[in-house]
Amino acid sequence: MTLRTLGEHACHGGTQGFYAHESRTCGTEMRFSVYRPPQAQAGRVPVLWYLAGLTCTEETFATKAGAQRFAAQHGLMLVAPDTSPRLRLPGDDLAWDFGLAAGFYVDATVAPWAAHYRTYSWITAELPELIAAHFPAEPARQGVMGHSMGGHGALTLGLRHPDRYLSVSAFAPIVAPMQVPWGQKAFAGYLGEDRSRWAEHDATALVVRRPRRDSLRIDQGSADTFLEKQLKPELFLAAAEQAGQPVEYHLREGYDHGYYFIQSFIAEHLAFHAQRLL
Amino acid sequence: MTLRTLGEHACHGGTQGFYAHESRTCGTEMRFSVYRPPQAQAGRVPVLWYLAGLTCTEETFATKAGAQRFAAQHGLMLVAPDTSPRLRLPGDDLAWDFGLAAGFYVDATVAPWAAHYRTYSWITAELPELIAAHFPAEPARQGVMGHSMGGHGALTLGLRHPDRYLSVSAFAPIVAPMQVPWGQKAFAGYLGEDRSRWAEHDATALVVRRPRRDSLRIDQGSADTFLEKQLKPELFLAAAEQAGQPVEYHLREGYDHGYYFIQSFIAEHLAFHAQRLL
Repeated sequence: MTLRTLGEHACHGGTQGFYAHESRTCGTEMRFSVYRPPQAQAGRVPVLWYLAGLTCTEETFATKAGAQRFAAQHGLMLVAPDTSPRLRLPGDDLAWDFGLAAGFYVDATVAPWAAHYRTYSWITAELPELIAAHFPAEPARQGVMGHSMGGHGALTLGLRHPDRYLSVSAFAPIVAPMQVPWGQKAFAGYLGEDRSRWAEHDATALVVRRPRRDSLRIDQGSADTFLEKQLKPELFLAAAEQAGQPVEYHLREGYDHGYYFIQSFIAEHLAFHAQRLL
Repeated sequence: MTLRTLGEHACHGGTQGFYAHESRTCGTEMRFSVYRPPQAQAGRVPVLWYLAGLTCTEETFATKAGAQRFAAQHGLMLVAPDTSPRLRLPGDDLAWDFGLAAGFYVDATVAPWAAHYRTYSWITAELPELIAAHFPAEPARQGVMGHSMGGHGALTLGLRHPDRYLSVSAFAPIVAPMQVPWGQKAFAGYLGEDRSRWAEHDATALVVRRPRRDSLRIDQGSADTFLEKQLKPELFLAAAEQAGQPVEYHLREGYDHGYYFIQSFIAEHLAFHAQRLL
């Protein structure tokens, strides 16, 4: 489990780093970023995972969200994995919502994706081991958040692993991939037509069967152009209510889908996680 | 003086916008960004100009610095002009430190640059008029800051127009362009070999003749790879001391030249300007 350092930068008294490793899960080099807060110089600190959206990389959150300021205040490590393998497969760049930068946090079962697009197992199994081995992370205290496709990732990982992730939040998440075009295309392409496999990766389907005891937090912009066709938070909220899953849902008037929205409410999300992880 | 809106995004209760206009000064379309804080809904607010560095655009500061949070707290408008015209001229992309994205905040006198590379007059004359006409800006309360090449811009504009810019700060500025490779190349290319013209755009030369009464603020990273050859803050600090120009100089241990450094100290810079502009 060796690590290749791509770059490290002092940031808010800590270190923003970019790394790569040869992933046995994905059968190729995978990238991720880690922010180590100043508190990590004195001992292990809780880890907050951030899963990014379509078109993003391991750099997007580090560059645009302004989260390091609050990670440094609370003493949280931030880990942001890339959104897909970067080796080239036939057809991986035909669309911006499938293939490159669109891994959807599943383990693909359909060729040619099945050999490499295994970001679910990479992020839940291989990468946490690597992080714990190379960084002062405290494995018993982890939270997960994400945006859009990564909001889907955060909710599904959080619902499937309630003991692993002690806190879960999302910005403008895809909450019901089985019922919207982005998710239907991705799941058909990566998982094939067996819909029983899809349900394991659909937050709205999962929450009915496996509600958590703690509140999830979701922030959604009202001016988000993907709101009506791709995000549909009302589907998740209804299922959560039915299942007894508490959700702190904040509809933000006038905000759109991008990182200007995320930077506006990132402090609240980090405080939410800090309260549960510290 | 018409304005073309490229995009607007809700951000920290205000609006982050991107705009273009046909500049009579530059003889081409020029771009800039404006952050309007929430206080601008109720009346005119002070304006803080941000001048960016080599390779940057009007988007870089808006995307990477995290300044909007503090502009919203203080009630400051942020204006960030692009770093050069974007029409294509022969040889404008042969180097990353001359031509495109490298206007150096001067009015070129050498062909072909002289017809378009007039960002000094664009930023000090035409653009302020446009801003005052289209946005709730208070022209009597303006400050200027910048980074690297834009730090050079901020210091030279601030020293030449002490009554216009009530507060001046810089991150990792080029302080003595006449004495370093970046500046020598740019000034020779844009201004020709007459060094008397160069001195008007050299902060170290200017401060001796025109010190301000108020303190300038400079933050500089100790791990900045450009520190020794291109930035040389000691040249400016010595000239400022000789001239009686107060400088609040902060050498930041371990920080490099990029936006992880800027985001780490942006709150302090906005507080510095707010104290003088509000």
